[in-house]
Amino acid sequence: MDSMSFILFGSTGDLAKRKIYPALYNLFIDKSMPASFSVVGLGRRNWSHEELQRNVEDAVRTFSRNPVDEEVMEKFLQTFRYHPLDVTKPEAYEDLYQYVQKREEELNIKDNRMFYLSVSPKLFDVIITNVKNSGLSDTQGWKRLIIEKPFGHDLESSRELNRKISTVFDEKEIYRIDHYLGKPMVQNLEALEHSNPVLQALWNKKYIANMQITASEIVGVEERAGYYDKVGAIRDMVQNHMLQLIMMTAMRLPNEINAENIRNEKKKVMEALRPLSKEDVAKNVVRGQYGPGIVNDEHAQGYLDEEGIEDDSKNDTYIAARLWIDNDFWKGVPFYIRTGKRMKEKSTRIVMEFKSPYGRRYEDQDLEPNLLIIEISPNKGVTLQLNSKNSLNNGKLEPVHINFSKDQRDLPEAYELLLLDAMRGDQTYFAHWDEVEMSWEWVQPILDVYEQDEAPLYLYEAGSMGPKAADRLIHEDGFQWW
Amino acid sequence: MDSMSFILFGSTGDLAKRKIYPALYNLFIDKSMPASFSVVGLGRRNWSHEELQRNVEDAVRTFSRNPVDEEVMEKFLQTFRYHPLDVTKPEAYEDLYQYVQKREEELNIKDNRMFYLSVSPKLFDVIITNVKNSGLSDTQGWKRLIIEKPFGHDLESSRELNRKISTVFDEKEIYRIDHYLGKPMVQNLEALEHSNPVLQALWNKKYIANMQITASEIVGVEERAGYYDKVGAIRDMVQNHMLQLIMMTAMRLPNEINAENIRNEKKKVMEALRPLSKEDVAKNVVRGQYGPGIVNDEHAQGYLDEEGIEDDSKNDTYIAARLWIDNDFWKGVPFYIRTGKRMKEKSTRIVMEFKSPYGRRYEDQDLEPNLLIIEISPNKGVTLQLNSKNSLNNGKLEPVHINFSKDQRDLPEAYELLLLDAMRGDQTYFAHWDEVEMSWEWVQPILDVYEQDEAPLYLYEAGSMGPKAADRLIHEDGFQWW
Repeated sequence: MDSMSFILFGSTGDLAKRKIYPALYNLFIDKSMPASFSVVGLGRRNWSHEELQRNVEDAVRTFSRNPVDEEVMEKFLQTFRYHPLDVTKPEAYEDLYQYVQKREEELNIKDNRMFYLSVSPKLFDVIITNVKNSGLSDTQGWKRLIIEKPFGHDLESSRELNRKISTVFDEKEIYRIDHYLGKPMVQNLEALEHSNPVLQALWNKKYIANMQITASEIVGVEERAGYYDKVGAIRDMVQNHMLQLIMMTAMRLPNEINAENIRNEKKKVMEALRPLSKEDVAKNVVRGQYGPGIVNDEHAQGYLDEEGIEDDSKNDTYIAARLWIDNDFWKGVPFYIRTGKRMKEKSTRIVMEFKSPYGRRYEDQDLEPNLLIIEISPNKGVTLQLNSKNSLNNGKLEPVHINFSKDQRDLPEAYELLLLDAMRGDQTYFAHWDEVEMSWEWVQPILDVYEQDEAPLYLYEAGSMGPKAADRLIHEDGFQWW
Repeated sequence: MDSMSFILFGSTGDLAKRKIYPALYNLFIDKSMPASFSVVGLGRRNWSHEELQRNVEDAVRTFSRNPVDEEVMEKFLQTFRYHPLDVTKPEAYEDLYQYVQKREEELNIKDNRMFYLSVSPKLFDVIITNVKNSGLSDTQGWKRLIIEKPFGHDLESSRELNRKISTVFDEKEIYRIDHYLGKPMVQNLEALEHSNPVLQALWNKKYIANMQITASEIVGVEERAGYYDKVGAIRDMVQNHMLQLIMMTAMRLPNEINAENIRNEKKKVMEALRPLSKEDVAKNVVRGQYGPGIVNDEHAQGYLDEEGIEDDSKNDTYIAARLWIDNDFWKGVPFYIRTGKRMKEKSTRIVMEFKSPYGRRYEDQDLEPNLLIIEISPNKGVTLQLNSKNSLNNGKLEPVHINFSKDQRDLPEAYELLLLDAMRGDQTYFAHWDEVEMSWEWVQPILDVYEQDEAPLYLYEAGSMGPKAADRLIHEDGFQWW
């Protein structure tokens, strides 16, 4: 791997602490880091190098999935330096430039530079402009940009954001993190399909009755109330994670597995995704908001009673939707998604329900359909629901589950896999601008309808699996949620 | 269920003790027995009713899978009566007839009579003739015959045996026990395929590369040496159990699941089974005999050193074979069977290996094929071998197993399921004469070649998986044993 400078904007922040430092540490002990590596942490505060290092150490000790090795930790911390920066001041970037160069010389690092913007999107513009003007991004080696969601809050703002970024970074240099794409079981999806002829044979409209993608949370808005109340499930989950899961599930098999081909196939899914007119929204999308209920055997307040939420908020804490992919491969197979807060269980999973062409063979028995369940989180595994004769029950056919589960504890965190890929220059599991833009395009009519309050808002009990309207949505087609 | 007399020839024997009594008891506690039920145990010995009942009780206490309930046991034993019988004496059958009738009157049983011949096949002829001549088989109700293997020792003798049986019992009245057909996972085969669209989709030549059926034992000849030395694996296992497993695995889906349709489909498999000429035998069938070796970490003697075996015996303790089913459904898919004694593991299983149409997608990785493994005994379960990305090993594709296992302890014994079916009059899992005859026809050229010693006899080490020649047989086609 190339030696590089890892220039981290927002190094004193929460994401750095919870995700970035533990991920870097785990890559470091796995020897998945370049031999020469300089982290320059940036922030407004007047920290010393030692203060940053102490914070990194704390973060790693608290959040690392692997136990800490003291000797390795010492070496790891030595790669970190802190540099205070007022991101709004152009002249501050000249200091920064000199400092980065000094470290590069000290460590004999070629000027490959990774810029990680772990800061509010409001600052993207000013940071990128200053990085450019200061010359920091004029490298002989490569430059790359890692940014976190949100990529805008609607179609127009996302385009504007991308336009600005594009003046400095080429699409091939931009790594947009959608951490769902870093989850091991999501990264396994294409491998599961493509390396298993039996799944390949089944993974198409001939055998699949419908696809269901669930991402349910037990928690409510927590400390993000103010932000979430303006965003809702539609922006927080559907525009990015849910549509990414649809792309990963529905994409066709490229002849060769590489970043360009995979992203190209994902793009084709979005191109074939049937657009919603504003009139379609109420028929195909269910907007929900949690009321009071029982969660984990305790009373939980409704969304409107949460601190920091507008009294008359119509914000969606739950979305279910029916989607159609209008290509030859998926013609006639509905995709259902649902995601929400304060639901009964925490689970991200994909369920493929297979068609049941039993005919009259077992007409005296109610058979459950075959299901392929890919659990993404918190459980990770693959389950196939089959029917089998129960010799203890007079030979009755009953569903059985064949499955494997990954050892949960040992699996790398999404950020580890994503940072490793970014450092290696592999964009496979990062969101391409085309994907982001088309996702916003698909979502925009929903945003418009909700903005005008032209669709019903269904209340659901906290601790339930969502509003009844979501059940009606899927019952219309003769199916049920799994 | 109809009330009936259960007339058991060989009631003092080993099979009755180990299998029949425990099976009847377990059906009794499951309330799967007719309300009125008379067992008349027959034998040469001069036992009293109480002696039989004590023996039955001992047998149940020793071999029952369910714990004994004392109250139920008392009622169960009351259904048993002993009647001494010299099977060669015609006049003795008149006594027997009167005794059976007396019990039927006492218990108010309609004259439905089940004749169970748990005796040496040499006695079948005389027993059946006398049963007929005495009038015992002239019932107003039904009469049925249960017989155990061997059904002859070659094609001719089996035909002769069947001719004799047929003078008294119609094919619809004959229940030929092949206890492999009583095993729950074998009875599950047709249900697994037919109730699961995903397996149905895959269970054909388009996706299957080959089928492998293994029935391996760890034990040697044990106390059956004298008998086994004249029979060999070819008669003891291949002609009956292995060919039955092939029929059950390869049969097509009837439109309606019933005994007649299933047996008809099995017959079609045998009709399509490519016959072996004597010249084909050495090319497609591997004959093995175990030499000395290590079994369970202990020295095990070779077959020729076993007590009761001829010094220069060429008997086969192992058979492997390649078979072809020449119909449209299985064209081009080889079926491999192997069975033997003194092998490394005890296992009866069916392994379907799927074709691997990966093309160039993963050319840098050696991928294992997908396998569907149906374990019949001693483990019972279904396993699917898939490939999955290992995030802990740099995303390498590695095989994983998804499976379910039946709770071994709780499953009914083969004899329970078979006796229940016989009492209900369901012939589905009994061998039809056509199947038996066609199996002998297929096996006959092999018997002829071995009789003349015109094929090599390969030695294999006790504790191994058989001779190298069996590996060569499957390697020729580019496959390996699973």
